[in-house]
Amino acid sequence: MAPSNSMPETMTAIRWHPPAFDIRVESVPVPKIQEPDDAIVKVSLAALCGSDLHVYRGHAGVDKIHISGHEFMGEVVELGSSYGAHSKGRPELYATLKVGDKVVSPFTVNCGECDVCRLGYTCRCPVGALFGSPALEGGQAQYVRVPKAGGTLFNLSDPKSWHSTLSPEMKEKALAGIADSSLLMLADILPTGVFAALQALNHPKVLPALSGRPWPASFFPGDVSTTVLPKDRMLTFAIIGLGPVGLCASVSLLDMLSEKQLPFQIVAIDPVESRREKAMAVYSKIDQAGKGSGKFIAQSIDDAKKTVATWTEGVGCTAVLEIVGNPSAISLAYDLVRPFGAIVSVGVHGEPQMPFTGRQLYNKNVSFDFGRCPARAMFPMAFDLLVKRQDVFGEVGGLDSLVDRIIGPNEAPEIYAAFDQSKIGKAVFDMWK
Amino acid sequence: MAPSNSMPETMTAIRWHPPAFDIRVESVPVPKIQEPDDAIVKVSLAALCGSDLHVYRGHAGVDKIHISGHEFMGEVVELGSSYGAHSKGRPELYATLKVGDKVVSPFTVNCGECDVCRLGYTCRCPVGALFGSPALEGGQAQYVRVPKAGGTLFNLSDPKSWHSTLSPEMKEKALAGIADSSLLMLADILPTGVFAALQALNHPKVLPALSGRPWPASFFPGDVSTTVLPKDRMLTFAIIGLGPVGLCASVSLLDMLSEKQLPFQIVAIDPVESRREKAMAVYSKIDQAGKGSGKFIAQSIDDAKKTVATWTEGVGCTAVLEIVGNPSAISLAYDLVRPFGAIVSVGVHGEPQMPFTGRQLYNKNVSFDFGRCPARAMFPMAFDLLVKRQDVFGEVGGLDSLVDRIIGPNEAPEIYAAFDQSKIGKAVFDMWK
Repeated sequence: MAPSNSMPETMTAIRWHPPAFDIRVESVPVPKIQEPDDAIVKVSLAALCGSDLHVYRGHAGVDKIHISGHEFMGEVVELGSSYGAHSKGRPELYATLKVGDKVVSPFTVNCGECDVCRLGYTCRCPVGALFGSPALEGGQAQYVRVPKAGGTLFNLSDPKSWHSTLSPEMKEKALAGIADSSLLMLADILPTGVFAALQALNHPKVLPALSGRPWPASFFPGDVSTTVLPKDRMLTFAIIGLGPVGLCASVSLLDMLSEKQLPFQIVAIDPVESRREKAMAVYSKIDQAGKGSGKFIAQSIDDAKKTVATWTEGVGCTAVLEIVGNPSAISLAYDLVRPFGAIVSVGVHGEPQMPFTGRQLYNKNVSFDFGRCPARAMFPMAFDLLVKRQDVFGEVGGLDSLVDRIIGPNEAPEIYAAFDQSKIGKAVFDMWK
Repeated sequence: MAPSNSMPETMTAIRWHPPAFDIRVESVPVPKIQEPDDAIVKVSLAALCGSDLHVYRGHAGVDKIHISGHEFMGEVVELGSSYGAHSKGRPELYATLKVGDKVVSPFTVNCGECDVCRLGYTCRCPVGALFGSPALEGGQAQYVRVPKAGGTLFNLSDPKSWHSTLSPEMKEKALAGIADSSLLMLADILPTGVFAALQALNHPKVLPALSGRPWPASFFPGDVSTTVLPKDRMLTFAIIGLGPVGLCASVSLLDMLSEKQLPFQIVAIDPVESRREKAMAVYSKIDQAGKGSGKFIAQSIDDAKKTVATWTEGVGCTAVLEIVGNPSAISLAYDLVRPFGAIVSVGVHGEPQMPFTGRQLYNKNVSFDFGRCPARAMFPMAFDLLVKRQDVFGEVGGLDSLVDRIIGPNEAPEIYAAFDQSKIGKAVFDMWK
């Protein structure tokens, strides 16, 4: 399709400059279609994410000036030549995506067609890239180029285009009632939280407690003379890190446990008191019926260690969700998990060596699931959760809110610095403010 | 029960002496019942295991002289006061085990009654211990004391005492036809091999290929518009280490894949040519119908890397079974596994730090399952496999045999040295020879 004549030549963008702590608001050329599969999206909202801080602090080994940001949503303003009815057989959006559609993008590009994408492992698509990295300009700009957009984007204007437990009509109705600042959470933090909770609750080492069938009968159907007692089925979780992803993981895990009516006890851990308060405020808003049959408490590291020891008589957690991404967080996860426990790590880890000897891992029969959320694949689950649980998060800026503030791009340098120092929660840029 | 009058005062035992490489055949006192839950077993056969080499080489931080060996079988000759009809409500063997019963012991003690054991995680029982360690005298002796024997032992004389896919009559018939040197493999290497294969084939990250449902639909029932193509369902495995456990893991994995008629390709890896030859000899004896719809090849490390790259067009293995237990083996597993792949490690790892940065693990979305086999819990599956696949292993000493030789205890010093240098395969001691 031809580029729109109304497109400006330049735009405002938030750019990172090497070596570190240098964020500038600059006027740069508006991106153009480069490949047939590209789309240009006019960005309405773009968020700042904890993992942006790796680059911000200069810890990511990056030296290329680039537009920041991997969480964004907006409106399609231009499409490459791949789009249209002639693209049958490719991912559906190549045939259905239109200029004017409202879209949210997962934080990485994925083609949707390769053997990695076909299995649902979209965040590791070999032709993919992370927005807001040296490989791909980010979304904290007025316009952004989305490569492989037919595989990557979620089309909020076409609720038939994704599979869900909700009907297209219910989706449309729900979409009308959800604020854009909440829909933006579908780009990263909500699917990443769901990804963590999903892996923790479905780990084979959690299965004996979940099913009441001892290992290895837990893997098979049929009768078994079980040795598992009702009290052995108590699921004990720790969630390490109560930033925005930790909150999303908490709500997702609580929702899954409540759906299945499973007995549970969750300790949510963060050294920052205001984050713990937010977690408790969000939990207190989960309606009583939907809390499930368990308890949830937000604590400091030391208090949490004592709580887990008391709850489990020293055995440890069934599973730990590690949402921070540094050696001390993953070490804490190891300390808290039970023998034959599962550690699910969605934190973005960097260069440090894993702080474990082989003997430690062998001696505790630990399992780990590491890595990035395949946000494109997780989108339907995350959307359903957002529709179902949107009310547990309050208005922007409240004690119970996921989004701390919505600001214009000019505040970016101060906002990055404050976020880096944990002085503020999640910030969202209205790129046209 | 009263001790048997026929028990001698002293016995022959194979003992390890610090600091390293010092194995002595000595006359030591016959063990006595110390606790009401103890049993004394007259050892018929005891095997030498690759993991014994950690202590042998002085790598285990051990300085206490002790009887070696954690793989043994024999006959119950004495029972503590816990045994008999008054022990109802405890693990069944407290009521049913009798002097004269033929038993095989898993390589660790487990009570069978605590919250860890009840979930089937028997190898991490808090009151358990590894035979042939400073904590507990081993089985390479004419007699051995088995603590918590009612939770620990398998009673081969009472096939009703364990759950199985086979009827008690079929079990009895099978037992009559299996050599003791094969039954001894139930102590460790066969359940450990099954444990590795079971975890690999049931990992959530293997599920999309297995089920044909992309992540995360792989976790749920119901309709889904799948993107998975038939060719994406090819399961590619690497098995690192073709010692006795690696052979057992190979046979177990082949059996499971054949049962489910799944498409697969397996590369089994070892630098030692004779071990690769043995693996191929065993594979060639798996009857055609039972091989399943796949291929199996034993290769050196470099050849295997090329094979995996060719088979998967550079993507990597669906899952890797790591059965060696050192940093280079686990690094090789990382190199071979695909993004969103699973590494199952049953190798006994020691003091070295895990050779991975956090970024490596995050960037490949790797999962790990570490640790020791809960042999007591895995016994029924291992027994069923032994009955079904006993014919794939040849007579003692053959190219296709699991057991290389059966020798008397006096040969222990030479046998340990030869085994340490990979000059011989699995050795079994007839303690009365």
